[in-house]
Amino acid sequence: MANSPSGDSVTDRLLRVLETFTPTRTVQTAAEIGRRAGLPTSTAHRLVGELVETGLLERDEDRRIRIGMRLWELATRSSHALRLRQAAMPYMERVQGRIREHTQLAILEQDEALFLERLSSPDSGSNVTRVAGRLPLHASSSGLVLLAFGTRELQERILAGALHPLTRETIVDAAALRRKLAEVRRLGHAIAPGYIEAVSVGVAVPVRDETGAVIAALSAVLPRDAQVEVPLFELHSAARDTERALGFRR
Amino acid sequence: MANSPSGDSVTDRLLRVLETFTPTRTVQTAAEIGRRAGLPTSTAHRLVGELVETGLLERDEDRRIRIGMRLWELATRSSHALRLRQAAMPYMERVQGRIREHTQLAILEQDEALFLERLSSPDSGSNVTRVAGRLPLHASSSGLVLLAFGTRELQERILAGALHPLTRETIVDAAALRRKLAEVRRLGHAIAPGYIEAVSVGVAVPVRDETGAVIAALSAVLPRDAQVEVPLFELHSAARDTERALGFRR
Repeated sequence: MANSPSGDSVTDRLLRVLETFTPTRTVQTAAEIGRRAGLPTSTAHRLVGELVETGLLERDEDRRIRIGMRLWELATRSSHALRLRQAAMPYMERVQGRIREHTQLAILEQDEALFLERLSSPDSGSNVTRVAGRLPLHASSSGLVLLAFGTRELQERILAGALHPLTRETIVDAAALRRKLAEVRRLGHAIAPGYIEAVSVGVAVPVRDETGAVIAALSAVLPRDAQVEVPLFELHSAARDTERALGFRR
Repeated sequence: MANSPSGDSVTDRLLRVLETFTPTRTVQTAAEIGRRAGLPTSTAHRLVGELVETGLLERDEDRRIRIGMRLWELATRSSHALRLRQAAMPYMERVQGRIREHTQLAILEQDEALFLERLSSPDSGSNVTRVAGRLPLHASSSGLVLLAFGTRELQERILAGALHPLTRETIVDAAALRRKLAEVRRLGHAIAPGYIEAVSVGVAVPVRDETGAVIAALSAVLPRDAQVEVPLFELHSAARDTERALGFRR
């Protein structure tokens, strides 16, 4: 529909515009958006103008553009992310209240762990995770759970690809990752000591649907020297209660 | 850009497609989307197909369409909603932990109160609020705060419009609403007993930016016979801590 001479659709262009916004780049000029989206200036101005008119983007007093509250509302109110998050939230709060450390919910999205929620105390330790942020499957405890219980195709694709290190302890060797995934399946949880940041250890457990398929991971980020038994116990019980709240378990 | 013969832009059509999804209608066929968005069938199928290809919408095993996780991620990760919510969350959790009732964060959006967050205990009472849901300004405690501290234009527009009742106690008379708004400004908080549901009372306080302008409302929904003093005290201190976290107050 409405393809440009270069063959990309308006939807492609819209996606490219939205992708220029990041957690650390939340406001931009229309010209910056155009440049970063690889769009001709006049096209960028027209498209941004239309998106501002509909409220999908917003223009501030300095005429800089940001993601519109209307877009957030429309993308959120009927999303699968919201349903899963709302079901898990009371139990994530319980975990967070008991262990007083970061508690997180992630799903598999485009070969990465996408974080739907993160709860923290003001006094929790270091944690790079953001809501609507992503982490690599091979490095994060959530990612290891999603990968270990994912499809064979997913596993082979990740094992065959480049395993980038985030710290000196991140697993970067395919054979070692294969052994780690077998361990995660055997234990029913993942422990990622220092894989993301040297000062912390991630622990994660699976959330399953009624068929037993893993649909999400619940995780906690603890100081490196913390005991993991109690957090794992709390995460497992939160996962079971979330499955029950979603109607996947009696 | 790429206007159709009827003069609406692709962005308009995209907005109409997204608006067919609601909190209670999260999956639809492409034909249903087309009908509800008022688009010709072929146009709807093409546009939906493109949106699925980019991941902004998703197609399930039954070929039904839902909001894509990618759209949620792009709309959330750099949104103003997320920043405000992340700043307020630790203090909302504190309120919720102490009063054990629904705790909420709302902003003004298109003459309504839009809820960015809602925390609840499994044992909290009745509450119609949803994340990314809306309530009328004249009926909800959050809305009354946003309206009372809003611009004169906003107030006159709402006062001149129809004030629909949600219960027998909702204020529907413009003169009574004007008096209520003066009371909210005088007290620095809003109390809405039975305006939304007869069984509950909403209480809300403002969150202000560095200029003193009200940018959000923090609220709690309590059983109708609950004491409001402690919840209001907790909400006020959460509002101050949120303002501090946002850099609006030392």
